Amino acid sequence: MSKPLKVALLGCGVVGSQVVRLLTEQAEDLAARVGAPLELAGVAVRKLGRKRDVPVPEELLTTDAHALVTRDDVDIVVEVIGGIEPARSLILAAMAGGKSVVTANKALLAEDGETVHAANRADLYFEAAVAGAIPLIRPMRESLAGDRVHRVLGIVNGTTNYILDKMDSTGASFTDALEEAQSLGYAEADPTADVEGFDAAAKAAILAGIAFHSRVTAADVYREGITEISASDVASAKAMGYVIKLLAICARSDDGRSVGVRVHPAMIPRSHPLAGVREAYNAVFVEAESAGRLMFYGAGAGGAPTASAVLGDLVAVGRNRLAGTRGPSESVYADLAVHPVGETVTRYHVSLDVADKPGVLATVADVFSRHDVSIQTVRQEGRGDDAQLVLVTHRASDAALSATVEGLRELDIVRAVASVMRVEGDETP
Amino acid sequence: MSKPLKVALLGCGVVGSQVVRLLTEQAEDLAARVGAPLELAGVAVRKLGRKRDVPVPEELLTTDAHALVTRDDVDIVVEVIGGIEPARSLILAAMAGGKSVVTANKALLAEDGETVHAANRADLYFEAAVAGAIPLIRPMRESLAGDRVHRVLGIVNGTTNYILDKMDSTGASFTDALEEAQSLGYAEADPTADVEGFDAAAKAAILAGIAFHSRVTAADVYREGITEISASDVASAKAMGYVIKLLAICARSDDGRSVGVRVHPAMIPRSHPLAGVREAYNAVFVEAESAGRLMFYGAGAGGAPTASAVLGDLVAVGRNRLAGTRGPSESVYADLAVHPVGETVTRYHVSLDVADKPGVLATVADVFSRHDVSIQTVRQEGRGDDAQLVLVTHRASDAALSATVEGLRELDIVRAVASVMRVEGDETP
Repeated sequence: MSKPLKVALLGCGVVGSQVVRLLTEQAEDLAARVGAPLELAGVAVRKLGRKRDVPVPEELLTTDAHALVTRDDVDIVVEVIGGIEPARSLILAAMAGGKSVVTANKALLAEDGETVHAANRADLYFEAAVAGAIPLIRPMRESLAGDRVHRVLGIVNGTTNYILDKMDSTGASFTDALEEAQSLGYAEADPTADVEGFDAAAKAAILAGIAFHSRVTAADVYREGITEISASDVASAKAMGYVIKLLAICARSDDGRSVGVRVHPAMIPRSHPLAGVREAYNAVFVEAESAGRLMFYGAGAGGAPTASAVLGDLVAVGRNRLAGTRGPSESVYADLAVHPVGETVTRYHVSLDVADKPGVLATVADVFSRHDVSIQTVRQEGRGDDAQLVLVTHRASDAALSATVEGLRELDIVRAVASVMRVEGDETP
Repeated sequence: MSKPLKVALLGCGVVGSQVVRLLTEQAEDLAARVGAPLELAGVAVRKLGRKRDVPVPEELLTTDAHALVTRDDVDIVVEVIGGIEPARSLILAAMAGGKSVVTANKALLAEDGETVHAANRADLYFEAAVAGAIPLIRPMRESLAGDRVHRVLGIVNGTTNYILDKMDSTGASFTDALEEAQSLGYAEADPTADVEGFDAAAKAAILAGIAFHSRVTAADVYREGITEISASDVASAKAMGYVIKLLAICARSDDGRSVGVRVHPAMIPRSHPLAGVREAYNAVFVEAESAGRLMFYGAGAGGAPTASAVLGDLVAVGRNRLAGTRGPSESVYADLAVHPVGETVTRYHVSLDVADKPGVLATVADVFSRHDVSIQTVRQEGRGDDAQLVLVTHRASDAALSATVEGLRELDIVRAVASVMRVEGDETP
């Protein structure tokens, strides 16, 4: 057994306190697996004297994070503060001192991964940054390293999945489902980062970068949240055998020369493996050329699950340090461009309130045709003077679909475009 | 870019020919990901001059596998022959020469992993040995290295899953479903290895060893196949909201001091994530202390999917060779014993043909009670003079359950024990 590896922990909240607990409770197993004990050198917190979920020996606590990460005896820095600063400065300072870094910081990696990867002189592991406990970064970076990924479809935000699942199973409105999620601790008091898709967009950027060996940032990701989803959208999807999920989609273009990265609600068929992902669970579906269809499923957040991912990375970087080696570094050789969302090829489900008179369908169909968008199914339901027209298109560019919807809005006979939603995961032509 | 790494391929069948194809078609990507080109040094086959799925340059083919794996210029040996010999001797010869080895050979690893791991002087990677394309070995060995796995429940044999899925969805008999699987190429002419559970047992041994950091061999695995499953078993399970799957189950005992490893058909609730695994797909469900419930899903067999796993390993060992390092080696420090199946704690579903007269239920219930097995539900259906009694037990040791069934067989009022099946994945007490 080698001499202990010293671990500095930045942050002692929901995840950090679980990391402390596991380092203590599983010390023997961890030492056997690494080949050396993992010893907590210090824990940087914002305030001393706070009550914590897990007791931390007082002499380990410090408010001087910078001094901690630059201590000569520290080997590995675990960053679970989140956010851009001071996390970035601390990680860069640690890296300058040759420390290995384990982080759960999706926002930093998605916004400024380039700086962090460039500064890395030992190891930078971040399994916990995407989809919590689900082993995803490692399989994508390593197991699929010999394959060609075509598409990644992921449910990577537990809060929105919980809300959409409640809306689907109980018929609740968005507001009621959000309130329930908040009361259960699945959503924060300010739910913006989750319900507007910012959290999922950061994860999509990280996944796309790894899947396509290119640099993708949060700013490259097209993003729509779920706040506009109504109970009737959910019911209408259900009636057609679909379920609405907030998806992170990273896909290679048909010619393979660029990638699209987007986060938005979408209808997927109930028979799709992602449709069965309930409550706050996460799942990521990968389509690769040789491997075919793969899915990874599990808890996407929470203290213990996220800490499990952090500990897995800790064991890996610990082993690497002992062996005097490094894990795989950032792979961006393919350098594919991210194309604008308009170039994405997808399908639309469009629901229109129209006047119920002859010729309406022909007029509506003409708008689709003028934009080269082919209609797969139409369903019309009379309701007194009005009728509801529900159309699902074949695959077309998002720009053409979007222009079609604009054209529909301009028609007198269209009283309202009740809803527009992308349809994914359904490859029937 | 470093100078090429030379790869020797043993076997050029369904998987090997796909490895050749991918090494050629994706040469540029692979070189960029490894940091050096992967160059095929030779392909060992049984017979020259055969027609192959993928054209292999004739000068690369050889029938002298031993000469190929001991060639000085070979860096990495990929073994996709399968079976114990000559695969073992060739791998040992390669290892003696310091080559890295990538293998898909589950039989060898499950029967004599100890010898092979002990001889390893560079890297031994075997992602393709379990569940084909599904990244599983690497996540279990590395991502979960900081967690404590409690249980692994897997559908790891595509042939039997295809057969059971057909029986479930069409009501077909085992024989008819097997014939269909054979006609579609999902089952071999001699289906013994699949339908009797030998293939799944080898995979269970490998998974258990990794999950519990202990040495487990195929001989340690309790095994029952699916040949006795009748259409009426499937229908009866369906009526109760269950589906029958052939499961590989690796579980820590309640006291954590030993592990049970078994392969047998079992009823699982339709709400369980594994229940939705259709056709020849594989999936592995992992329960870990911190990570919670995880599932990995994908194609478990087939040339291209298996080759994807081989190529991922090739990239990893290639990177390791360039860096002058090694991946994680075998971890068996926990050295847990495998307990006999009798000590397994599980639940039984028992279907009895009984005489339809007063006191029958009391007599039957008494047998359960004498063996300390608690009954969860009973359902009785009269059929003329006879009745059918269907009982589901609470959790008890397999030995007690087995003794109970023996006791039932001895009762005069029990005309026949129509079926006995374990119930898994349903944690309601």
